[in-house]
Amino acid sequence: MKKNVLIIGAGGVAQVVAHKCAQNNDVLGDVHIASRTVEKCRKIVESVHEKKALKVDGTLAAHTLDALDTEAVKALIRSTGSQIVINVGSAFVNMSVLSACIDTGAAYLDTAIHEDPLKICEAPPWYANYEWKRREECARKGITAVLGAGFDPGVVNAYAALARDEYFDKIESVDIIDVNAGEHGRWFATNFDPEINFREFTGQVWSWQNRQWVSNQMFEVKKVWDLPVVGERTTYMTGHDEIHSLSKNLDVPHVRFWMGFGERYITVFTVLKNLGLLSEQPITTAEGQQVVPLKVVKAVLPDPSSLAPEYKGKTCIGDLVKGIKDGKEREVFIYNIADHEEAYKEVASQGISYTAGVPAAAAAILIARGDWDVKTMANVEELPPRPFLGLLDRMGLPTCIRDEQGERRLHFA
Amino acid sequence: MKKNVLIIGAGGVAQVVAHKCAQNNDVLGDVHIASRTVEKCRKIVESVHEKKALKVDGTLAAHTLDALDTEAVKALIRSTGSQIVINVGSAFVNMSVLSACIDTGAAYLDTAIHEDPLKICEAPPWYANYEWKRREECARKGITAVLGAGFDPGVVNAYAALARDEYFDKIESVDIIDVNAGEHGRWFATNFDPEINFREFTGQVWSWQNRQWVSNQMFEVKKVWDLPVVGERTTYMTGHDEIHSLSKNLDVPHVRFWMGFGERYITVFTVLKNLGLLSEQPITTAEGQQVVPLKVVKAVLPDPSSLAPEYKGKTCIGDLVKGIKDGKEREVFIYNIADHEEAYKEVASQGISYTAGVPAAAAAILIARGDWDVKTMANVEELPPRPFLGLLDRMGLPTCIRDEQGERRLHFA
Repeated sequence: MKKNVLIIGAGGVAQVVAHKCAQNNDVLGDVHIASRTVEKCRKIVESVHEKKALKVDGTLAAHTLDALDTEAVKALIRSTGSQIVINVGSAFVNMSVLSACIDTGAAYLDTAIHEDPLKICEAPPWYANYEWKRREECARKGITAVLGAGFDPGVVNAYAALARDEYFDKIESVDIIDVNAGEHGRWFATNFDPEINFREFTGQVWSWQNRQWVSNQMFEVKKVWDLPVVGERTTYMTGHDEIHSLSKNLDVPHVRFWMGFGERYITVFTVLKNLGLLSEQPITTAEGQQVVPLKVVKAVLPDPSSLAPEYKGKTCIGDLVKGIKDGKEREVFIYNIADHEEAYKEVASQGISYTAGVPAAAAAILIARGDWDVKTMANVEELPPRPFLGLLDRMGLPTCIRDEQGERRLHFA
Repeated sequence: MKKNVLIIGAGGVAQVVAHKCAQNNDVLGDVHIASRTVEKCRKIVESVHEKKALKVDGTLAAHTLDALDTEAVKALIRSTGSQIVINVGSAFVNMSVLSACIDTGAAYLDTAIHEDPLKICEAPPWYANYEWKRREECARKGITAVLGAGFDPGVVNAYAALARDEYFDKIESVDIIDVNAGEHGRWFATNFDPEINFREFTGQVWSWQNRQWVSNQMFEVKKVWDLPVVGERTTYMTGHDEIHSLSKNLDVPHVRFWMGFGERYITVFTVLKNLGLLSEQPITTAEGQQVVPLKVVKAVLPDPSSLAPEYKGKTCIGDLVKGIKDGKEREVFIYNIADHEEAYKEVASQGISYTAGVPAAAAAILIARGDWDVKTMANVEELPPRPFLGLLDRMGLPTCIRDEQGERRLHFA
C-alpha cells in the first residue's frame, strides 16, 4: 500500500490526472502538483475546487519544480511524503524524475517515452535507449516504475494483453488505431503539446513487421478503417511508443500504429516540415539569435488546453487484433469511445487529455492498492489488464469490443 | 556630374548593382559596397572580378557598415568620396541612409519603400509616412533623391510615364502585372528577402480605385492574364510601393498591382500566416526566449541568391494601360521579359535580382551624367522616362510593347 501522489506537469493531461486523483483521494491521500510554472499548477488546483472534485477533505497543493533537477524532485518527494509520482511533464524529464523515484523509493509512472531534446525517432526499441537501462536497478531496489500508462501507450497495451490472455491462442498482428473525430473549431491546433506532437512525426516511422523493425516516411503508408461510432476514417502509419514495448513483450509478428489525420493537419505538417520549421536543432537568425524553430512553432500555436471549451465530437482508440483461437482465425477490435464535451463537463479538459490522464490516475490507484505495485519496472502489457480496465470502466473510459458477435461493452466484475 | 558610388546592402540585388556599376565604372568612378556582414560584400567583389566586369581599372572595395547608424553612413560616404549612394539594403534603413545623404550632399537612390520593423502595410500613401516628409528639405538643400528605382517600383513607373507622355491623352487605368514564370527547383523559396517578401502580403492590400484607396485581403481578388512569352498566368491583387506614388503623380482613376503566385506559394503563405509565423511582432517561447516569428521563417528559408545557379525560365513585368488617344479608346501593355539563366550567366544572379538591380545602376548612371540629377526628391514617374528606358535597353532590360499593332521591342535612339 502506497499513498500521497506528486503529479509532475501542469498541462492538459495533468489537469485530468489532478481531477481524477482528487476524485479518488480516499485511496490516494494527498495530491501535489508541481511544474516549472507554479501559476499553471494553481489554476489546476482552482479548477479541482470549482468542480468540488475532492472526494474527502485533504491536501491539494501547487509547487514550483524544475523536473530536470533530480535533487529538486527528490526534495519535493520527501517534503510532501509522496509515495507515488505521476510524471505527466514534458517528454524530456522522464529520466531525471525516474532517478529521483529510485533514490527515494517512490513509485514512478508516466504516459510517454523519454526524449532527448536534440534527437528524434531514435533507434528502436525506444525504451531501450533510456528507461529500460534502469530496469535491473528498479528490480534490485524494489522500485515500482510503470511506463507508458496513458491511453496510447497504456490502455492499448492492456487491450493487447487482454486479447492475448482471453481472445487468442496465437496473435498474428496488433494494429493500434487512434482516431480523433472531434472538431475544435480552430484553423489549426494540436491536441497535445505541439512540440511533442510534431516530434513524433518528423523522423522515420518505425513499425514492427515480420518480427523486424521497418522504417517508412510519415504519410507514406495510408489505411482507411471503418470504425465503431466514428465511421470510415483515414489513418497513416505512425511511429509510437507502444510498438517499442509490445514488439518485445508480446510474441507477435506485426505491431503497427495508425493515426487519423485530416487534410488540414497534413498540409500544415508538410509545409512546416519542408520549410525546416519543425526542426529540433537550433538555427541562427540574420540578427544572430539562436532559436529552435519547433519551439517557435509551439509558441504560436494554440495552447491545447485552450481548445477544451469548444471541442465537440468523439475519439475512437483501440486495438485491431488478428490471430488464431481454437484453431480458427479471428479478428477482434477492442476499443474505447470518448466524448470531448463530456470530458469538459467533468474535468474541464478536452477528450485527448482525458483519455491520456484518466489511465494515469487509474494506474496510480492500482499502485496505491497494491495490484500494480510490482516492485520493478514494467510496461503496461506486463501487468494484469483486468484490474486496470475494470477501474477505467468505472472512471469514465469503458472498454468495448467488436467481434463475430458485433459491438458491445465489456464488463470487468 | 557626380561620381563614385556607395552601394549599401550585399544581397542578390546588390550583387547585380555591383556588377552593373563595375561595367560602367568609366562613368561612375569608384565602386564601394557596404553591409553589416562584410564577408558578403567581399563575395560580391570576388564575383565582379571573376566576371572581369570592371570596364576600366578602378576602385572596387568592401566595407562593414551598420546602415541604421546615420553617422557611420556619413563617415563612409565622406571617407570614400561617394557622391551617389545606391541603397539596396534592408527596407528598414532607408531613412537613416537618406539622412546621411542629406547631411553630406550625396545623391540618394533606392529600390523599395522604407518600413518600420514593427509595422506592416501602414496607411496609404506609404511614401508620405517616411520619405516624402524629407522632400522639401531635399529641394531646399538641392539633394537628389530618387525613390523606388528598381523594376517595380521603378521601371514600371517609367512605363506609366511613357504611356502618359506618348501613348495617351487621358489614362483611365494602370494595371501593373508582375509574373515570374521561372522555376528554381526548390520545394519553396522566395525570390528576394523572405522577411520583406512576406511583409508585403500579411496586412491589407491597398489599391487605388475610382481615385480612392480601397482595402482588400491578400488572395481575395484574382485575375488571369494572357501575357506575352509566358502565356496565361494567375495573379492576385497585391499592395505595392508604386501605387502609392503613381496615385499621386499620375492623374489616373485606377492604379492596381497584380502579382503572379503559384499554388505552392499560396499554400505555404496561408499556413504560415494562419499559424502566426509571419508576424513581425515578438512572441515568447515556453523557455522565455523573445523571438520574432518572421525572422525565424526567414532563417530557415533558402537564401534567395542561392537559387540563381538552378533558376530557369522567364519573368514578365509590365504596365497594362487603358485610356483615350485621339478620341479613341486604346490599351497598351508596356513590358520587359527577363531570363533567369541569362542573368546568371552575366552577373551570377537570378532574374528577380537582375530586374531590380539593373535599373538601380542605370539610375545611378543618369544621376552621374546629370539627366536625373534633379536636386530634389523624386519618384521615377516624375523623371524623364526616355533616358532611363534607353539606358536599360542597352544594359539588358529591353522594353517591349503590345498594342493594336501587336508585340514589338521599343527603341530609344
